[in-house]
Amino acid sequence: MTLLDENRLFPTDPAVRKIAKGLFESVKNLPIVSPHGHTDPRWFAENQPFRNPAELFVVPDHYVFRMLHSQGVPLEALGISRVDGEHTEVNPRNIWRLFAENFYLFRGTPSRIWVEHAFQEVFGITEHLSAETADSIYDQIADCLEREEFRPRALFDRFNIEALATTESPLDDLAWHKMIRESGWGGNVITAYRPDAVVDPEFDGFSDNVAKLGELTGEDTTTWAGYLAAHRVRRAFFKTFGATSTDHGHATARTEDLSKDIASALFYKALQGKCTPDEADMFRGQMLTEMARMSLDDGLVLQIHPGSVRNHSKDITRLFGRDMGHDIPRPTDYVSALRPLLNAVGDRSDLTVILFTLDETSYSRELAPLAGVYPALKLGPPWWFHDSYEGMMRFRELATETAGFYNTVGFNDDTRALCSIPARHDVARRVDCSFLAQLVATGRLGEEEATEVAYDLTYRLAKQAYRL
Amino acid sequence: MTLLDENRLFPTDPAVRKIAKGLFESVKNLPIVSPHGHTDPRWFAENQPFRNPAELFVVPDHYVFRMLHSQGVPLEALGISRVDGEHTEVNPRNIWRLFAENFYLFRGTPSRIWVEHAFQEVFGITEHLSAETADSIYDQIADCLEREEFRPRALFDRFNIEALATTESPLDDLAWHKMIRESGWGGNVITAYRPDAVVDPEFDGFSDNVAKLGELTGEDTTTWAGYLAAHRVRRAFFKTFGATSTDHGHATARTEDLSKDIASALFYKALQGKCTPDEADMFRGQMLTEMARMSLDDGLVLQIHPGSVRNHSKDITRLFGRDMGHDIPRPTDYVSALRPLLNAVGDRSDLTVILFTLDETSYSRELAPLAGVYPALKLGPPWWFHDSYEGMMRFRELATETAGFYNTVGFNDDTRALCSIPARHDVARRVDCSFLAQLVATGRLGEEEATEVAYDLTYRLAKQAYRL
Amino acid sequence: MTLLDENRLFPTDPAVRKIAKGLFESVKNLPIVSPHGHTDPRWFAENQPFRNPAELFVVPDHYVFRMLHSQGVPLEALGISRVDGEHTEVNPRNIWRLFAENFYLFRGTPSRIWVEHAFQEVFGITEHLSAETADSIYDQIADCLEREEFRPRALFDRFNIEALATTESPLDDLAWHKMIRESGWGGNVITAYRPDAVVDPEFDGFSDNVAKLGELTGEDTTTWAGYLAAHRVRRAFFKTFGATSTDHGHATARTEDLSKDIASALFYKALQGKCTPDEADMFRGQMLTEMARMSLDDGLVLQIHPGSVRNHSKDITRLFGRDMGHDIPRPTDYVSALRPLLNAVGDRSDLTVILFTLDETSYSRELAPLAGVYPALKLGPPWWFHDSYEGMMRFRELATETAGFYNTVGFNDDTRALCSIPARHDVARRVDCSFLAQLVATGRLGEEEATEVAYDLTYRLAKQAYRL
Repeated sequence: MTLLDENRLFPTDPAVRKIAKGLFESVKNLPIVSPHGHTDPRWFAENQPFRNPAELFVVPDHYVFRMLHSQGVPLEALGISRVDGEHTEVNPRNIWRLFAENFYLFRGTPSRIWVEHAFQEVFGITEHLSAETADSIYDQIADCLEREEFRPRALFDRFNIEALATTESPLDDLAWHKMIRESGWGGNVITAYRPDAVVDPEFDGFSDNVAKLGELTGEDTTTWAGYLAAHRVRRAFFKTFGATSTDHGHATARTEDLSKDIASALFYKALQGKCTPDEADMFRGQMLTEMARMSLDDGLVLQIHPGSVRNHSKDITRLFGRDMGHDIPRPTDYVSALRPLLNAVGDRSDLTVILFTLDETSYSRELAPLAGVYPALKLGPPWWFHDSYEGMMRFRELATETAGFYNTVGFNDDTRALCSIPARHDVARRVDCSFLAQLVATGRLGEEEATEVAYDLTYRLAKQAYRL
Repeated sequence: MTLLDENRLFPTDPAVRKIAKGLFESVKNLPIVSPHGHTDPRWFAENQPFRNPAELFVVPDHYVFRMLHSQGVPLEALGISRVDGEHTEVNPRNIWRLFAENFYLFRGTPSRIWVEHAFQEVFGITEHLSAETADSIYDQIADCLEREEFRPRALFDRFNIEALATTESPLDDLAWHKMIRESGWGGNVITAYRPDAVVDPEFDGFSDNVAKLGELTGEDTTTWAGYLAAHRVRRAFFKTFGATSTDHGHATARTEDLSKDIASALFYKALQGKCTPDEADMFRGQMLTEMARMSLDDGLVLQIHPGSVRNHSKDITRLFGRDMGHDIPRPTDYVSALRPLLNAVGDRSDLTVILFTLDETSYSRELAPLAGVYPALKLGPPWWFHDSYEGMMRFRELATETAGFYNTVGFNDDTRALCSIPARHDVARRVDCSFLAQLVATGRLGEEEATEVAYDLTYRLAKQAYRL
Repeated sequence: MTLLDENRLFPTDPAVRKIAKGLFESVKNLPIVSPHGHTDPRWFAENQPFRNPAELFVVPDHYVFRMLHSQGVPLEALGISRVDGEHTEVNPRNIWRLFAENFYLFRGTPSRIWVEHAFQEVFGITEHLSAETADSIYDQIADCLEREEFRPRALFDRFNIEALATTESPLDDLAWHKMIRESGWGGNVITAYRPDAVVDPEFDGFSDNVAKLGELTGEDTTTWAGYLAAHRVRRAFFKTFGATSTDHGHATARTEDLSKDIASALFYKALQGKCTPDEADMFRGQMLTEMARMSLDDGLVLQIHPGSVRNHSKDITRLFGRDMGHDIPRPTDYVSALRPLLNAVGDRSDLTVILFTLDETSYSRELAPLAGVYPALKLGPPWWFHDSYEGMMRFRELATETAGFYNTVGFNDDTRALCSIPARHDVARRVDCSFLAQLVATGRLGEEEATEVAYDLTYRLAKQAYRL
């Protein structure tokens, strides 16, 4: 018995399935290039065992705990810490049992696929998770975790990861990355520059953060020029730890291209905590364009991840803090929002800006037309709620006819969960091969060409777009 | 010869079709649970024969007359009464002939499927409707209608309806429901609380309606506290006639959670007819949250049906009155609109709020992420223009990966047309089984699990969500 | 070897493919009716050979050069003239080689299909375009172009075009159309009335254009009444050259139905160049309703093509001028925007207004519900970025269930590229037959009915809707 169907996610028509399988054969063993994600560099620095199955699969996975919560499971029972220190479940086996009893809720979701892929491929589990199998599966995973070959570095090697980017704040000292470098281990774990804490006037402690950025860089961050210089210094530092990209997750895709005087005045206002919400948004928008200009100099790729209303539930935020699954996408405008940045640097072919969306309506209406004409612009893969079979299929169907394949950048797993990395890349490869097989079977692409495109989508475009 | 293909709406790939058929076999004979709709309780109270084929299939069906009107058929010719009493067609056979001649217009629409299902399954008709067959089909239906087994109660029983909800205003005396109860007939026809007339300051006669609500309940509805108390009393009265839900059809999904003073002041303004359009919307939004709070006490399920611009044509409204098919959906925001209600009660797992939409772009962007995290929130089935093969398929494809199956609530037929009830449930069951078969065939779900989900979507979830 | 798969764009399931092929057989040889497009009437007037392959396939095709540009190919290298007269490539073979080297970029796009269709069907080419085949294909096309049977009129006849509409400004003297008429050649090339230059206050030289309209018509276009009369005169003149339609390409779908006084005042303001952007939009909106009223008198069909932000890149516009591929769709509201026009004339069944969109979210939410009820309204085919396999399939899937087939108007190729006309109609016929085959195979439509609908979508509806 296996958990995974070897033909999963392939087209059902036998002739088309055969084409898809052929394409998949040609890419399934390619190394994983993971240029964007949120795994913890400490894992690879310390290489300690993961503690238990619940901490590996449940507690940190917002996909998992949001679904359980939606059906009335209290976050406390899932081991999520409360801000006020009130009791939450500490026994990982209890958390695991709750997960197991409710695992049927994940039917039809990508979480189900990722979890079962990790179960089978990483831990050799062959039974479906349920109340009945909860304990035996827990024990099997727990046993594995004690073994050397399930430590982070061993998994990294086993997963055939060629490059893995984590994401750090400019205020991070990159100590874990330093430790990895100095360890002599050969895994290519790199950082990425995520400056929310020092570019968002509404971020907790913004002005202190900017002051700290000054200390770290030796620049005078009380001035606009010094502040920009500090970013340049810090970006260079990040580059010494392999960074090839920056990442920006604002609520909107707003960009600005303000005069130096206006930008500078806005900066001082931000430092003093006097920005209105609109001015804060304007400042973030200006910083995207500033970052793009720095990218022209230092070659870092600019990623924009807009469109989520964070911390939608007041109570959950109060009780459990930020980023507890209550993030809801909203309509995102790109056409006017990106115009200032694109008019400043969009026609440069020595710059790469990678755009993501949580608003699928923009794929065919805005994003493909934009990426299909501006040399600097590329489309990131389906993101977050859309990192799924149907989501990826819609992306290809909606974006390809206008943007083609070559204005896209391969796959991002964007994950915090180490074991989900091969699972997610497996899904992406299968969906891309299925989409390509459909083109072949309907006379829109030759099979040889499709093989080339499959290779490009799996491997080459990620390396090229992210300059890896 | 038959009108209906026994494999209709199933996937075309033979292997997938076989799975779908197997799933469908397991659910096709389950009782119909119809927790939301607009049939007339008088039918079941009086149990009189339906008058003629035109009044059964054409005159009251806005899907039918809007399509005929779109191709230039005057509403008068379809027997729709004019406000000014000008002549409209009264001969049902003439209306029927017009319908028959133009029946080709419904190719590719759900109306075609519903009508032909009723023709074959209810009336034993085996010919397609056209100018040639108009009279013979008319006669065949007319003959049936005279027979005892085609009276409303007999059809209800024959359709295997386990529960059927109608929708009434708080000002309704529920006399027909009372008559049904007292008749000794066993059919389970229940009411639902639809308070538009007394919660919408822009409803015709709002303040008179509120006064009448006071009379009916013995509460002082000239005060905010009395007005809320009157709702509580009336909801309790509706519960004695089986109500398990309330229903709200505002133009937007706006909710509010105002202080008592502000809400109260707004109420007095509304009573005096002095609300601006924005204030009227704010009041409706406040009432949704009030209704949700009452639901916490009395257990009624809250349904929200937003997003339609009603009576788009000035002339049609002037000549024929409200709700004459000129209702057009518009973009609907849920993320900020629902936040006040959700922040007030959304994390309660003892409350059920069922959300509908006419804006399919919100399925994957807003509704599935919201229902996939808030315990109180569930997604209603595809509604109105989207109660169709393609509409249902899109709903499952767009919502399932984030919300799963268990944050949805089974099917609503939402119909005014008795004979369309089995037709609509048949379509929904076939589409769900087809979607599930696709998941099975692509290795995303086991066949045994799919059988369980098919049962849940057909039967269990409707009963559970609507507390039937 | 062939470039084209004879079964291209058909469903992959063998049984469904067989139905689609059968339907396609019945329509593939029907004459082409092309009621909306942008070919150059001069071609048919002068009947001179096309100059070279680059000028036929690359330089004028915005689909082609926007994709090449998106991957960093300078527009200069593609022979696009600069406003400042700076050097651009003049050797067509160099341009062609650049196109050939980068032809892989078009994988999965409609351009690929159109180009290969023209290669094979028009020029007898059997090899894929690439760096290796660039020269031999160039030579083969260049040789053809010198031959009589590749001149515009010969191609027109060979393509079996029954009617072809071009688009001209009211200020155009229609000299080429006159020359065609007087030539004795039998090709039915007609004009269409596209009055942007004289109805858009923001158009370059608006007031001069209006003055010129006065001269051409002998009406006093300094008054509102005279201006409207001038339109009527010019529309009548266009009708003498076969025009059956007008066309309007505003940034929004806004319409107005202002009083004569207000409209008149707005007109004077526009003439004086004093309109605010909002007033300019209001004036354009008023002119749509005026045009609709004129259509009631003269029978011209009104086409509305809204929703594109033109000339998004400031630099490209400065260097190369308008309409250089940097046009990006944005969300388009129809429900409130069209209400003034629809309330004025939408319930008239002697008027035809054909609506297009670049915002696919409106198909099921707004356009199908509107066209499915207003007698005057019909839906134009998928437009521009959506004139593609996936785009057409989405249109049918999203619009048919509410609007049916008979509120749509057949296909428009909307092209500037003569050789793409048969290619585009071929794609549309294949997609419609595939969609219909899917309906047949899932029991939603009889095969005989599907054959009738295929004929209607291919031929009859275009002639009927455009009054050809």
